[in-house]
Amino acid sequence: MTNLQKRFKDKNILILGGLGFIGSNLAIRLVDLGAKVTLVDSMLPQYGGNSQNIQPILGRCKINYSDIRDTYSMNYLVKDVDVVFSMAGQTSHIDSMRDPHTDLDINCKSQLTLLEACRKENPSAQIIYASTRQIYGKPKYLPVDEAHPIDPVDVNGINKLAAENYFTLYSKVHGMRCISLRLTNTYGPRQHLSGDSQGFTGIFIRKVLSGEKIQIFGDGKQLRDFNYIDDVVNAFLHCVDEEGLSGGVFNLGAEEKFSLLDFVKELQKHVSFEFDIVPFPEDHKKIDIGDYYADFSKFHSQSGWEPKVLLSEGIKETIDYFRQYSKHYW
Amino acid sequence: MTNLQKRFKDKNILILGGLGFIGSNLAIRLVDLGAKVTLVDSMLPQYGGNSQNIQPILGRCKINYSDIRDTYSMNYLVKDVDVVFSMAGQTSHIDSMRDPHTDLDINCKSQLTLLEACRKENPSAQIIYASTRQIYGKPKYLPVDEAHPIDPVDVNGINKLAAENYFTLYSKVHGMRCISLRLTNTYGPRQHLSGDSQGFTGIFIRKVLSGEKIQIFGDGKQLRDFNYIDDVVNAFLHCVDEEGLSGGVFNLGAEEKFSLLDFVKELQKHVSFEFDIVPFPEDHKKIDIGDYYADFSKFHSQSGWEPKVLLSEGIKETIDYFRQYSKHYW
Repeated sequence: MTNLQKRFKDKNILILGGLGFIGSNLAIRLVDLGAKVTLVDSMLPQYGGNSQNIQPILGRCKINYSDIRDTYSMNYLVKDVDVVFSMAGQTSHIDSMRDPHTDLDINCKSQLTLLEACRKENPSAQIIYASTRQIYGKPKYLPVDEAHPIDPVDVNGINKLAAENYFTLYSKVHGMRCISLRLTNTYGPRQHLSGDSQGFTGIFIRKVLSGEKIQIFGDGKQLRDFNYIDDVVNAFLHCVDEEGLSGGVFNLGAEEKFSLLDFVKELQKHVSFEFDIVPFPEDHKKIDIGDYYADFSKFHSQSGWEPKVLLSEGIKETIDYFRQYSKHYW
Repeated sequence: MTNLQKRFKDKNILILGGLGFIGSNLAIRLVDLGAKVTLVDSMLPQYGGNSQNIQPILGRCKINYSDIRDTYSMNYLVKDVDVVFSMAGQTSHIDSMRDPHTDLDINCKSQLTLLEACRKENPSAQIIYASTRQIYGKPKYLPVDEAHPIDPVDVNGINKLAAENYFTLYSKVHGMRCISLRLTNTYGPRQHLSGDSQGFTGIFIRKVLSGEKIQIFGDGKQLRDFNYIDDVVNAFLHCVDEEGLSGGVFNLGAEEKFSLLDFVKELQKHVSFEFDIVPFPEDHKKIDIGDYYADFSKFHSQSGWEPKVLLSEGIKETIDYFRQYSKHYW
């Protein structure tokens, strides 16, 4: 039995947003490690919940369809769990500007509902929150470490920041065991690909596999760090039972940095397509952050985590997956 | 006609939280300057709305009882106004920890409702938001300027921060004319005095006027800066029509710094009472911030504002007011 199997065998795990991109990949891994996993998902249209995502573990986990803004079901669901992974959320920056109240409800209010439920019903549960690089806004220096000023450039960033602040506060004030990971560009199988208001990786992958031309905004030279989903799942697993991390916030990131053009060229190794480089549309331009890549040494030194999957490998896996299952995703 | 009279004569002004402490004092001043003032207040119990507060201007302003979380009435109310002063809010740190969802609704969601209403119905209105020093958390250096790290120590601070971020964002992205003032300890006539979950100034003033003994938490040496209400009202007036301030956040503050003991001794010049110095209760201790005083030079240099009322004068006015009207306040 590996260390990870020992760590997770028969653990009661609750995954909020469990049918979404990161939640479902995490669930598959945890079920395989012998954990008792319950998935919670509201299946709100447009937010990535997809029954195809959990095909590999159907019958080996519990599924609870409910909205994490619902106090009563949350109070019940958190009882007796060892770990809660809070991955539910609205991730579109553009949608958050068009409909800020829904973003507030889903990204902020729901996390407070979770924390209050745990505080009342299960204060010793460990809670790992999927935060975002978005809260830094436009980088003032690179790589961005956790001490970088916080200056969100959109409603999504403001609300995710408030939520992250709740997790940190509940650790400090109520002695709860919360950790926030600030995710950068995560990509891979089970990613949410429909719609045009998600991140560019999903839009590009869907379009090139559909035979469509893609558009790169700006000059295509904006640098990004990419994390393949398996590495992100590992990062979440690394948080469990690490008491020294409680109350902390940690960047994820990658050693490799790529421009958007590099990313597109990696895609072209597997799919033929054309692309245009066009100026930013007005609504994107106002919230674009330029280059971004993170310093993840704090999390590395405290947990031992590091990303292992190269972009070239990760893109191949992603393309293979979506070629096979495209009809379930768009 | 003074410059201020010229500035405000016949201006349409909306004051949210208009029957509360700061809102009502601002309203009285604006009515006297010839402005057309509409007060909005939900009169939620415990939040300071008090009909006694607006006795001097009854019949000379409009009063609209409604909740600023109510989208439809807000959309209607913001039409055709020149300036919105957003002073409505829940200010108790302790209450925000006990009931965080209500704090989120009132301090965060309501401000988003206001901003969305203005964006849709009146994007050229000027909006001045009453923010708070609470968002800085425990000072890392003194005096605290606007570049000081943001690290709220309670739910109230987290939610007020999110709201302030909305105002700054809507200025940047939507070109709206929003300004946030970060208030420190404001005191004076019409202050909310009932209940024990508000700031210490209100609790002390009520108790000593009721013949009760008061308790100072800690050692009484914590330093604070105090702003008398007339100076705070002037600060809000200084924001109007100052286009250079749009999108900005500004500290208020005072040249004088006082310990809690100093404040109590000022009270003793006007009222006889006893006090005890006792250790912090647990729920206060966790969110206490130690010494705090602000650097308000940014606002001073850009608007010309400076506080003029000494603590000794302000306390005398405050005690005189509440001696006369105590039956309306507790």
